[in-house]
Amino acid sequence: MNIEKVAIAGAGIIGASWAIVYARSGLQVAIFDHSAEGRAALPGRLAEAIAISDALLRPGETVAQVTARITIHDNLADAVADADFVHECIVEKLDAKVAIFAELDRLAGPDAILATTTSSFPVSKFASELACRDRCIVVHPATPPHLLPVTEICPAPFTRADVTDATFRFMEACGQTPVHIKREIPSFVLNRMQAALVVEMFRCLNEDLISAEDIDKIISQGFGMRWAFLGPFEGVDLNAKGGIRQYLENFGFLFNEMANELGFADVVTDKSIDALEAYARNKIPLDKLQEKVSWRDQSIIALRQLKDARGTVDRG
Amino acid sequence: MNIEKVAIAGAGIIGASWAIVYARSGLQVAIFDHSAEGRAALPGRLAEAIAISDALLRPGETVAQVTARITIHDNLADAVADADFVHECIVEKLDAKVAIFAELDRLAGPDAILATTTSSFPVSKFASELACRDRCIVVHPATPPHLLPVTEICPAPFTRADVTDATFRFMEACGQTPVHIKREIPSFVLNRMQAALVVEMFRCLNEDLISAEDIDKIISQGFGMRWAFLGPFEGVDLNAKGGIRQYLENFGFLFNEMANELGFADVVTDKSIDALEAYARNKIPLDKLQEKVSWRDQSIIALRQLKDARGTVDRG
Repeated sequence: MNIEKVAIAGAGIIGASWAIVYARSGLQVAIFDHSAEGRAALPGRLAEAIAISDALLRPGETVAQVTARITIHDNLADAVADADFVHECIVEKLDAKVAIFAELDRLAGPDAILATTTSSFPVSKFASELACRDRCIVVHPATPPHLLPVTEICPAPFTRADVTDATFRFMEACGQTPVHIKREIPSFVLNRMQAALVVEMFRCLNEDLISAEDIDKIISQGFGMRWAFLGPFEGVDLNAKGGIRQYLENFGFLFNEMANELGFADVVTDKSIDALEAYARNKIPLDKLQEKVSWRDQSIIALRQLKDARGTVDRG
Repeated sequence: MNIEKVAIAGAGIIGASWAIVYARSGLQVAIFDHSAEGRAALPGRLAEAIAISDALLRPGETVAQVTARITIHDNLADAVADADFVHECIVEKLDAKVAIFAELDRLAGPDAILATTTSSFPVSKFASELACRDRCIVVHPATPPHLLPVTEICPAPFTRADVTDATFRFMEACGQTPVHIKREIPSFVLNRMQAALVVEMFRCLNEDLISAEDIDKIISQGFGMRWAFLGPFEGVDLNAKGGIRQYLENFGFLFNEMANELGFADVVTDKSIDALEAYARNKIPLDKLQEKVSWRDQSIIALRQLKDARGTVDRG
């Protein structure tokens, strides 16, 4: 599938951000919004957001060249007529998703991929009965996608495999980092993982163990500075000479104790250790771990310097 | 309390890292380790770690000047004799903590602050019966402290208030970011928060919802890039024009749904909203939120450029 023209339905924060992702990748973008006010404000919003993030444009491209690829439409049919990839970004309500996918079924071309940026509803919840259902797929980003690359891809059981594959390749071509959600679950994985931490933050606050300010500092002056460069599993791989297997065999009980305290069964099992060992050793051989430790340490130091340089806009 | 000389008991990864924190702040550091092998390896380890992190030295200081402030001792009494601040960094076992604090009670000066870098045991677990108990305090860092500034300070109920205050000021003077753990709980808060996310990562992996690699990407290519600059509560404050109160009044139910799913009571309550509102509005007035959004966005863009420049040591 060759994707050259993209349509976006809904010009809110996420729709506008996706428009930037696609336009700066060289694609034509037709964006629909039902609100006259929303349409009128859009060119200014887009130009400003593209200008602020101009460091992410392709070499030699100007803000004007990128904005020129985006057209604004008051009519969904016009916007999607010849689109190869339609990205639905309207309000997060199930009945609205049902209604617009029924429209897209009629209005979009017979080969167009029909993506939704929903943060909560698997495709099966609103497109199961439609002729187009095998071209429907969730493409849900971290917010906003033109700044944060990671993007959840969740196909329905009836989504065609070539649609899923093409969506992955398309996201990669646009500079995003697609991740595969293997089964349809409400709210997918990104928000679930984020919420696990935020819920624990609230619990520590509500138990009056620590102030809200100090909770934030634990992340922004602590492990958030590591996680900017490597995921926690990757990070654990650096904590023992024998990598993640050795670390979990020695200290995995600590995570199990914490899981048990939260009311869950053990999470570190022979099976999960095997899976993580396979992942980690495919990523980097054991004899390069020390080099990666140095790379991580130097990355954190560079981040400290960047943070010092950027200062703060908070009260002094 | 004027802290000029520091003693460290235990030259493992954390003890050596604390030695760097103190020595680069201009303090004399006496470090004790019982192992001849450990002592022999220490000068090389310290010099290398200080050289790698030389960007964090005070302007004009050399690696040699900093390392010269650190002396290595085979005898605990010698190391702590005239120390104003003793930082215990030995093995994480309760009986070992009991034994070394009994020794410190005899060997350290009568005014010395006796800190422990323990990650699990509140002071009451091992120092309640000692004469020195009112000078004992937990000073537990993110790992390693010479790179990550955040440091948990947890006094016992019997720790003197001026000892706690002096420890806070001392950490700040050393460039660390101290946070206050208000009550003694096992494992404190940093590890509890980190574990909440890691346990959820394991659960997603064990349910085969997503691969280990993709879980890591959700963090390192997603919210970890925001958290490098601001804590999640601060981040939520930017999600609505009316700040964190408006956001939580509209969308707090999402966190409560997630909390309920995890088996917890509601976490977003009138009381927690009040506490977060007070924190957020003390930090930044509402009319500066848009400026902070731009600051955040530009910070993330600068981080993307930094990450591109640093590349990777993983397989291609």
